[in-house]
Formats: sequence, C-alpha cells, structure tokens
Amino acid sequence: MDCAVRVCEVGLRDGLQLVKEFFPTADKIAWLELEAAAGMPEIEVTSLVPAKVMPQFADAEDVIAAALALPNLGVTVLVPNLRGAERGIALGANTLDFVMSVSRSHSRANVRREPEESLADFERIVALCREQPAERRPRLKGGLSTALGCSYEGRVAVDDVRRYAAQLAEAGADELLVADTVGYADPAQVTTLFRALREEVGALPVGAHFHDTRGLGLANVVAALECGVRCFDASLAGLGGCPFAPGATGNIVMEDLVFMLDSMGLRTGVDLAKLVAVREIPARHLAAGELHGAVARAGLPVNYVPAADRAPAPA
Amino acid sequence: MDCAVRVCEVGLRDGLQLVKEFFPTADKIAWLELEAAAGMPEIEVTSLVPAKVMPQFADAEDVIAAALALPNLGVTVLVPNLRGAERGIALGANTLDFVMSVSRSHSRANVRREPEESLADFERIVALCREQPAERRPRLKGGLSTALGCSYEGRVAVDDVRRYAAQLAEAGADELLVADTVGYADPAQVTTLFRALREEVGALPVGAHFHDTRGLGLANVVAALECGVRCFDASLAGLGGCPFAPGATGNIVMEDLVFMLDSMGLRTGVDLAKLVAVREIPARHLAAGELHGAVARAGLPVNYVPAADRAPAPA
Repeated sequence: MDCAVRVCEVGLRDGLQLVKEFFPTADKIAWLELEAAAGMPEIEVTSLVPAKVMPQFADAEDVIAAALALPNLGVTVLVPNLRGAERGIALGANTLDFVMSVSRSHSRANVRREPEESLADFERIVALCREQPAERRPRLKGGLSTALGCSYEGRVAVDDVRRYAAQLAEAGADELLVADTVGYADPAQVTTLFRALREEVGALPVGAHFHDTRGLGLANVVAALECGVRCFDASLAGLGGCPFAPGATGNIVMEDLVFMLDSMGLRTGVDLAKLVAVREIPARHLAAGELHGAVARAGLPVNYVPAADRAPAPA
Repeated sequence: MDCAVRVCEVGLRDGLQLVKEFFPTADKIAWLELEAAAGMPEIEVTSLVPAKVMPQFADAEDVIAAALALPNLGVTVLVPNLRGAERGIALGANTLDFVMSVSRSHSRANVRREPEESLADFERIVALCREQPAERRPRLKGGLSTALGCSYEGRVAVDDVRRYAAQLAEAGADELLVADTVGYADPAQVTTLFRALREEVGALPVGAHFHDTRGLGLANVVAALECGVRCFDASLAGLGGCPFAPGATGNIVMEDLVFMLDSMGLRTGVDLAKLVAVREIPARHLAAGELHGAVARAGLPVNYVPAADRAPAPA
C-alpha cells in the first residue's frame, strides 16, 4: 500500500527496555504478528545490546527470526555499536538503527562515549554494511537522540544537531531519525530544527521520534508534518516511560498518532481497530495505568470514515 | 501584561458541570482566587442556567461576586438564554458567553431548540446588552458548539459553521468561540475551518475551545495558532470529561497548554508553577484519576526559562 506517512512501532524496543520483568518471547512475537497484521509497515522489534546489559532483549534472535517470517513488514533493530551491527546483519534485519547522543553529557552518561566516538563507530558500521552483498545489506538509520533537549543540559543547540546530522549523512546514513528523548520539544522548536535539517541534508529522509512526557507529542508531529517530515516512530499504548519522569507517558501513542494522521487524510496503511486490539498483549503483563492512549479509551468518532475510503487529501 | 495569546480557564464551568457532587462554594472561590493570582487573565466562573437544572451552579451569584472582587481578572459567565443574560448583566459579569449548537441534532437534544431559535435568542441578548449604559455593558461571546463534529451526526459541514458564524457576527458578537464539543477535530480540519472563518468574519476575534477526548487537543491548538487564533479555552487538570467517552479527558489541560505556548515563546501572562499548584483545590474533591495533565506529572524541563524572561519570539 502506498502510504502518505510511514509510521514505525517502537514499543517492543523503546517500550520494553524500561520494563524490568521479562516479557515472554511468545507474547513479543504475538504482539509483532498482530501489529503487522494490522498493517504496521515497520517495527523496531528488539535491541542488539548484550543480554547481560539488558536481559529483556536476551531473546533478540528468536524475535527477529519471527518478524522476518512475516510478509510486508520492515524489520528494524537497534544496534548500539559495530558488534551489534554485525549481529543484525547476520540475523538478516532489514534496517539497523544506530543512535548517537547530540548532548555530550547524555552521551557520556548513557554510553560512556563522546559523540565523536559514536560517529566513528557509525562510519565503521557503514563500511561493514557496504561490504555486504546487495541482498544482505540492511538499510541504515542514523539516529540523533537528545536532539531537542537533554535532562542534563536542558536546551540543545540547533547547530550541534545540524553538524552531527551532516556528519551522519556524509558518512552514509540512508535516513536520519531525530529524537526528543526526554520529551522537552515544543512545536516552534520542532519547526526550527527540522527546517534547519532540511536545509542541511537536502532530500535525505528525516524521521521524528517524539516522546509525550509533557503532553506535546502530537502537537510536535503537527509541526514536523508542516516541515515535510513523513516518518514517525510511536509505540503501542505509549509504552516507553522516562526514568526522569515517573508516571509520565513515554513515546507518543501509536493508536492516537494513526488516528490523527488518518483523520487528517494522511494514509498510514494501518487498520485502527486492529491496532487498538493489539493492546491486549501488553495488557497481559503491564498494569492498566501503564497503558496510555485516548482513542483506545474514547473510541472513534460516530460515522468515522478511514482515510483509505475517502478521496486523497490535496497535496 | 501584554500577552501573545489569551487563555481562558473554563474548568469552573465546563469542568464542574459534569461533577455530580456539589463542589463547595468556598473552594470554587479559592480556585479562582489562586488561579487569578497565577496570572490567568480570564476565567469562565460559572453558568447561569437555572439552579434546578444544574444544582452545581446554584451558588453562581456568590462565585461571580468573589471573582469580580479580584484585580485584573476578566470574569466570564455562560448564559443559556435571555434570562441568563439579564442575570449576568445584573450581577456585573465582564463577558457573557452564549453558545449555540451548529449541529441541529445536538441542538435539539441539548437545548430542545433549532439553531435558528438560538440565533434569535442571541439577537435579543445583543439588544439587551446595547440597552445598557456603557459601564454595565458586557462583552459578548458568540459560541458555536459541535462546530468540528457531533456525536449524533458525525462530521459537521464547514458551510454550516460559516453561515452561523456570519450570523452571530452580523447580530453583534464581540468575538466568536468555536468549540470541538466532543473531541472529534483533527488539525487538518481545524485549519480548513479557521481559514474559512477568517475569510467569513474578517478581523472579528475567533477563539478556540478544544476537547482532548481523542488526544488531539494540543495538536489542534498548533493548527489553530497557524491560522492566527490567539484565544484558547482550557481547563485546569483537563476537567470536563465527556458523557459520551467515559474515562476520557475533557477540555485540553490548561497547564499543558500554557507550557506549550510558553515553550513556543508565546507569552500568556500565567506563572506555570503557581498554576500547577492550583490543582490542589480540585484534588480535594475529585479522584486522582480525574485530574489529567502531563506537565504536572513530569515537571518542567531542566534549566527551563519562561517566555517572559526570553527575548520575544519573532512575529
């Protein structure tokens, strides 16, 4: 299906990485199978961090294998470093998502590296990908975390994001992914940053990964859409949380994002009723208060007509 | 203080009208006093519906008197009809808010009137206001409910909103207030409607009253800001609910709205920390689950600088 906006489910990675209890492999697989069947075009299915660092992802190989067996699903995995990229390629992932922190303090605290070291790692990952035969070569996302704020530094300079974005693009990223890791962004800031990035990296696709920590997630999507952004991460039931904001939602809620885009006439290829039904899987293991989402609670408007059944929105 | 955007608190009216237990008069007054002290420029303090219809507002006269005693506060009251307007004028309210339903089904179900009858009532209210000496003449808001969707009819035609807006303007409204009563609006629809209204009523101020029932409230504010809207209703802790969407939030959350506007560099005159502290009043009488709001939960970003302490945003 040709979609106006591509959404990518990150709950299985960004959502589960903060869940302490091991989420059973069978239910991870049931989740991604159901969500793929709802039409989700891309799922970040796991993280290839070492299992001793994050036991939640000790089953990464089984999850990736199950995801790759599904038709029409883009299978993305987070790779923290060159070793992770090697595993991702060996396992046949379609897309590797490598993330560097724009904020130096966050980079040091989170991965004990300078941003420049992350960039050098990214260059090695690009080289590794380019060595692969065409059929094994994954797509490569260059992620920029804390690009819209940092819980150590506060505001992050647009020029820093711009410089690292240019370096990731120059190094060979197939697309960029700009993350508001701690939910600090506002729509005006989003407009400023995405315009600057468009100017910097030209036609290279730039996606957005917003958190809803302070309630502005979908407002920021509106601002990004205005700037031409057409790829958005989100997570089922807004899973993700933020260790710095207890009780706050984490990622933007996928169901609400899909509802908003669809209402706006921007097709996503996702069947909203089927998507909402997938919540049953995380609901088996998480408390009701951890599952967010307005559309799931309130239901669709009366006489709602999905975008796919309407005339296409004007360009 | 000269503000870029004017926000109006409606929790005491739109929020409390769905609360069955009588909210003590002393706490209504404490709420509006604290919120006025936080810099809120306008509060819709009560509704002048007959007390037998809505016992929650049986204390309207005391609440209005207390509000009028506060410095720098615009005191607005909802008036359902000519009789309500007479009382509002007698009590000295600064602004009367009269609301008609655009949706004929909603109008019949809600007030047992055709929209044309509401318009005729509005004309009588205008005439009454114009008879008053200048110092007693209130400002008159012409509200259009179900302007972005109706839980009986679904979508509502832009042309219907446009026609009634023109008639309210022609009749003598000082400003219009467009309401997404049941939380159906999406940002694309908001853009279409507010552009059409701008074309229709020219320079007459048009405010927006969004509900967050399906999570798109602040996203819709972003779209409305883009159309030049500079007046927004919201309610403390998102009070308001919706009888058609159990568990859903009601109005957009004032604290999150003020945070978003302030982050964008749009001054509101409201002190966010003081505003968040006002939640203590409704928290005395409502369950924690009824109080919504992301900023209250997550706190402000590290090193946050309020808009008033920054250079003004470019126009």
